[in-house]
Amino acid sequence: MAEFKLHGFFESGNAYKVAMMLEMTGVDWEVIPVRFFQGETREHNWRDKFNELGEVPVLQHKEETLSQSGLILDYLAALTGKFGANSPTEQREIWRWILFDNHKFTGNFAPLRYLCGIAETGETPVTEFLRQRVRGAWSAADKHLANRSFILGQRPSIADLSMTGYLFYNDATGIDRSGEFPNIERWVQRVASLPRWQPPEALLPSVPRT
Amino acid sequence: MAEFKLHGFFESGNAYKVAMMLEMTGVDWEVIPVRFFQGETREHNWRDKFNELGEVPVLQHKEETLSQSGLILDYLAALTGKFGANSPTEQREIWRWILFDNHKFTGNFAPLRYLCGIAETGETPVTEFLRQRVRGAWSAADKHLANRSFILGQRPSIADLSMTGYLFYNDATGIDRSGEFPNIERWVQRVASLPRWQPPEALLPSVPRT
Repeated sequence: MAEFKLHGFFESGNAYKVAMMLEMTGVDWEVIPVRFFQGETREHNWRDKFNELGEVPVLQHKEETLSQSGLILDYLAALTGKFGANSPTEQREIWRWILFDNHKFTGNFAPLRYLCGIAETGETPVTEFLRQRVRGAWSAADKHLANRSFILGQRPSIADLSMTGYLFYNDATGIDRSGEFPNIERWVQRVASLPRWQPPEALLPSVPRT
Repeated sequence: MAEFKLHGFFESGNAYKVAMMLEMTGVDWEVIPVRFFQGETREHNWRDKFNELGEVPVLQHKEETLSQSGLILDYLAALTGKFGANSPTEQREIWRWILFDNHKFTGNFAPLRYLCGIAETGETPVTEFLRQRVRGAWSAADKHLANRSFILGQRPSIADLSMTGYLFYNDATGIDRSGEFPNIERWVQRVASLPRWQPPEALLPSVPRT
């Protein structure tokens, strides 16, 4: 049995954030597929056992059952000594961006990508609303990355893994990333060039969509 | 000059989360009003000086300029020894809920309340979408609070201050909180009964809306 068990599935960019970290730190891990589209995370049994909030990712490690990708990334950085902070100031900078990611950067992009790429609602007032909010959040990050290789500066951290997670999926969302946000585009390529990086489909299992 | 300077304004529940913490821990603080509705947080000068992400709250303390309410709450808990964690397990539990708050609990409620109570868009597909997501997030929290006084159990923490921040505003959002989420309603009253608690209008300044 692997040391780390990640509960997740291909479409979950939040699970992929953790999968990237597990793979790139070289720890011994395995994935437990979650039948999300059949409602597994909404079942009482799953919630009681893994996460009362009904969300993936969940990471099991020894006696710990952890949820929330940002927290899991912080836990793994402390444990492995990789992609973490070198000072209290860096630690605060990392949390600042992970909170921004949860609140707005992924927070608005993940539902937009879900509606466009998975639920396939077509263009609606909701996709328009979310896209406008995505553009606001991405603009701020694009400016930050204009003169930096990674969020902290020269060195990649869990803030980069958290924020790029959903950017490795190719669903059309009506945003021309390389045209509108060139610094984000280059940063995504930079993360993909890091040792041991692999795309979502290589790390997470497909589960039935219906 | 006060030891802590909080940049914020009445309508920002995220600024209020920090204001509650400052007031309830009894530190020496003052507020710097932000002319949000005149676009002050979008100005280059403000962003360069206080927060490149263009958001309140910002807290200035000695040499530090901090943003993101969740991070500021964690910083103040460590500094004052109040409303923080007593163990690494509690620390993780606090971060888990603060991340959930940023992602979904406040994350969906704040824009719903903005559209309903401030922009006054009336009922639209967007308010309907957000309200559905709020109900999902609130249901999970309501269940958690069914047999607990506060998020951690018997003791209030920054997780409670983060999650209740926006619940002390009275804008109509189409959700009957006491009817649909009675455990949340009781928890909000419990927070309001804590020593030194004060409502948003007592802690944050009104700024012109136009």
